[in-house]
Amino acid sequence: MPKHIRPEEHTQDEVMFYDTDVGGVVHNLAYLRMIEKCRTRLAAQLGFDLCEMARTQVYPVVVRTEIDYRRPGRLGDLLETRGWLEEWGRVRFWCSFEMRRPLDGTLLVTCRQQLALVQMPGGKPLRLEPRAEGA
Amino acid sequence: MPKHIRPEEHTQDEVMFYDTDVGGVVHNLAYLRMIEKCRTRLAAQLGFDLCEMARTQVYPVVVRTEIDYRRPGRLGDLLETRGWLEEWGRVRFWCSFEMRRPLDGTLLVTCRQQLALVQMPGGKPLRLEPRAEGA
Amino acid sequence: MPKHIRPEEHTQDEVMFYDTDVGGVVHNLAYLRMIEKCRTRLAAQLGFDLCEMARTQVYPVVVRTEIDYRRPGRLGDLLETRGWLEEWGRVRFWCSFEMRRPLDGTLLVTCRQQLALVQMPGGKPLRLEPRAEGA
Amino acid sequence: MPKHIRPEEHTQDEVMFYDTDVGGVVHNLAYLRMIEKCRTRLAAQLGFDLCEMARTQVYPVVVRTEIDYRRPGRLGDLLETRGWLEEWGRVRFWCSFEMRRPLDGTLLVTCRQQLALVQMPGGKPLRLEPRAEGA
Repeated sequence: MPKHIRPEEHTQDEVMFYDTDVGGVVHNLAYLRMIEKCRTRLAAQLGFDLCEMARTQVYPVVVRTEIDYRRPGRLGDLLETRGWLEEWGRVRFWCSFEMRRPLDGTLLVTCRQQLALVQMPGGKPLRLEPRAEGA
Repeated sequence: MPKHIRPEEHTQDEVMFYDTDVGGVVHNLAYLRMIEKCRTRLAAQLGFDLCEMARTQVYPVVVRTEIDYRRPGRLGDLLETRGWLEEWGRVRFWCSFEMRRPLDGTLLVTCRQQLALVQMPGGKPLRLEPRAEGA
Repeated sequence: MPKHIRPEEHTQDEVMFYDTDVGGVVHNLAYLRMIEKCRTRLAAQLGFDLCEMARTQVYPVVVRTEIDYRRPGRLGDLLETRGWLEEWGRVRFWCSFEMRRPLDGTLLVTCRQQLALVQMPGGKPLRLEPRAEGA
Repeated sequence: MPKHIRPEEHTQDEVMFYDTDVGGVVHNLAYLRMIEKCRTRLAAQLGFDLCEMARTQVYPVVVRTEIDYRRPGRLGDLLETRGWLEEWGRVRFWCSFEMRRPLDGTLLVTCRQQLALVQMPGGKPLRLEPRAEGA
């Protein structure tokens, strides 16, 4: 894989009633559920397959989340989440995310998550496989 | 619209971590969230548009749910939800749903929901517009 | 245990932002989460302990839910859920629930759930232990 | 209020099925729901009352979350969340949280959240009232 290619994923979600709260906007937890969907697809690109994980009980788990809420989404909005691999270390890796409303290009949310690979249910951390140069 | 055509909608969801529980299967609430997505698309066919609802505060609200859990879904499963209009009355209507795993055709969940049209936030019930014959 | 005593449980929840939606009222899924808390406490009375379940992977799972939404709850409401054992069969049992706002006694939700005891992750149904007379 | 007194709140949650995922531990979003409950009680101490907010549509909204997942919680665990006011500025304030399992004192989660006061549904930010010295 050439050095300038980094794994990246795009997902879309239409804002449903269960995503909103009485303030009339998307609840802060709902964005993180949308981000998890994007992250899961991104993890599949990195070699972590959902069905395989369910079998081996080896999972990438979130160890830190940083999220900034910039503009609110609303009922019926189509939201696009873009996620990419930011950094790949020996035992941890970072993913970054941006959420936009494609209709007007507004940036709603930015987020970074650090993940570690663990053997469940014990929670033992595992070494990450080195990624091919530039991957 | 000819009498034999009834509004129908199909949606798909891939089972994520947040859909599962420690029993190793999809949590019973997660199916209802998937059903809400299908129901919202179906409601759009019936003339209830999300953005319009957010503006007018007139919403179709669930007044009764009946759901049978037949077989469990698992992490990574692709689930298909089929929803259709079952009955359209003067102030209430019924929708029905079936959820299957297309991979093997297994029927996981069947569900019926009765809805009423209300003016929020007061909750005043409104009369349904009569539907064209057969619609 | 005398015949007229049936297992019963009471739980309370204050309505949070994450329980509400843009309609300005409690979202229909949030009531079912409150009911699950009450049901779990009730199940403990019936001999199903959460920590023990996590160890043995034997769980009572919901196989059917019937729920009627009568009046809406709102942000900040204190809601009380009362749950009781309705019927105890050979392989299935029924629990019933009522949710009220103690402030004014309004009945918001009534619900019945049928449960079965299964060995996870396979999902094999198990025989229920007969309950002592009247229990 | 003397300078060394800062508003603080303690809440407790028993880990339910809906809080867990197939990894056998509490899902990362569930901790944030528990933290919201603690934060809402803390906000009440700071003068933000839920019922009042529903009336005025003036809400403190989360603009940034930083959360570290240190040790996993499990089904049936009793978790204690401690939240306190960290900093009070002109238009934003910070709250901090620690989540522990009182049974063995294990620290599971630490979290900081920055909040702003906004007038919904427009989202216009409002000036914070200065707090009495030391509060």
